[in-house]
Amino acid sequence: MQNLKLTMEYDGTAYHGWQVQPGLPTIQGVFDETVKRISGDEVRVTGAGRTDAGVHAMGQVANFWTKKDLAPDAWRRALNGLLPSDIVVQRVEPAPEDFDARRSARHKTYRYTILNTPHPSALERHWVLHISDSLALAEMAEGAAYLIGEHDFSAFRAANDNLRNPVRRVYEARFGSEANHLHLVMTGSGFLKHMIRIIVGTLLDVGRGKLTPDDFQRILRSKDRQGAGRTAPPHGLCLMHVSY
Amino acid sequence: MQNLKLTMEYDGTAYHGWQVQPGLPTIQGVFDETVKRISGDEVRVTGAGRTDAGVHAMGQVANFWTKKDLAPDAWRRALNGLLPSDIVVQRVEPAPEDFDARRSARHKTYRYTILNTPHPSALERHWVLHISDSLALAEMAEGAAYLIGEHDFSAFRAANDNLRNPVRRVYEARFGSEANHLHLVMTGSGFLKHMIRIIVGTLLDVGRGKLTPDDFQRILRSKDRQGAGRTAPPHGLCLMHVSY
Repeated sequence: MQNLKLTMEYDGTAYHGWQVQPGLPTIQGVFDETVKRISGDEVRVTGAGRTDAGVHAMGQVANFWTKKDLAPDAWRRALNGLLPSDIVVQRVEPAPEDFDARRSARHKTYRYTILNTPHPSALERHWVLHISDSLALAEMAEGAAYLIGEHDFSAFRAANDNLRNPVRRVYEARFGSEANHLHLVMTGSGFLKHMIRIIVGTLLDVGRGKLTPDDFQRILRSKDRQGAGRTAPPHGLCLMHVSY
Repeated sequence: MQNLKLTMEYDGTAYHGWQVQPGLPTIQGVFDETVKRISGDEVRVTGAGRTDAGVHAMGQVANFWTKKDLAPDAWRRALNGLLPSDIVVQRVEPAPEDFDARRSARHKTYRYTILNTPHPSALERHWVLHISDSLALAEMAEGAAYLIGEHDFSAFRAANDNLRNPVRRVYEARFGSEANHLHLVMTGSGFLKHMIRIIVGTLLDVGRGKLTPDDFQRILRSKDRQGAGRTAPPHGLCLMHVSY
């Protein structure tokens, strides 16, 4: 038996997220079936981040165990030969016995992209949230900076995600712009369900002048989802990197 | 009757090119139907560039005549409200009576994008040509520079495009790289059928060391399609801008 670590990119547009769901196309489901076609093994690949429907990945990390005697790079070629073109395996590496893509992850980095132009983009429609309103970028950056550190992020989590400990450590929360694209890049020990999307929705309220950066900080401290903004749509979000 | 000039962006992935073809989805066909839904008029929109199947546009220009008494910006909103999300009208402007998007065009700028990485990209698979071979970029740039000026481009045109005058003037042929992306940006008075795609295929032979930059110049001067490379696939090509 060997434990294999994979780094992968995917376009989440056509999938109901990472996690297997009966009768629905998911990244994990397609991946497990592809491994089975190669090795005959019934596997359940473990992903570092359980991305929501429509969320993309440029650096998702996953692992699975196999009995098949095939070198890691031969696995990569075999997988890419059979996977649909919207899922690409970038690397396959042998992993230590105790490596688990989810439990071993130290940090994850996500990026949320907003296209701030008068008209939407046909070419980028699946990767960016289009916002035509004029946005106060300096205030959005000021709000984002309050996210850094260890906080109870209850204000920024999905209503149905109230079982887990809501404390997370955020190492990086960088809001920047490049031409018409605005990015929020967040690195953290982990993220609550919809956390980044609710943060983006609330920062958009700051950008539109409905909230001040101080209001944003107050909402974070309130631990109350009611004060925060709407959940931004999934398609602007991309899992960029996982550190171990 | 008013003559309207439109600037538009589209993702060509789902279409059989610009030009109407019976029974097949085309940009022109979808556009004409959408105008009809708004005004009741049977129109035939004229596009500056008749992009091939799979080719994209960030700055296609088109025009059509209408009896409908609707302001240009109301046309834009009505069109974007009804067009599919892979076609976006960026601007609608009143145009002089003698304006014809195709005949009045002075220059067109196209960009061809190559992703030069070991593995293909899931997210960019519809917009870039993926090449994993290592490429000699300086030699490709040197070859591209020979394209500037007025030439008989017979060496770089589709075999079935032999009726028109093959002389074209190229104002700009800039080959550059940005991280893993290579771009060929060409501005010209017009382009023969498949011209840029055959040029890209031939420059790739230069990049792989099969041809020298001098060979590339010799092929251009030969006016013989046989010496040139393969036609690069359409999906790396994008119509960027049309000048009038």
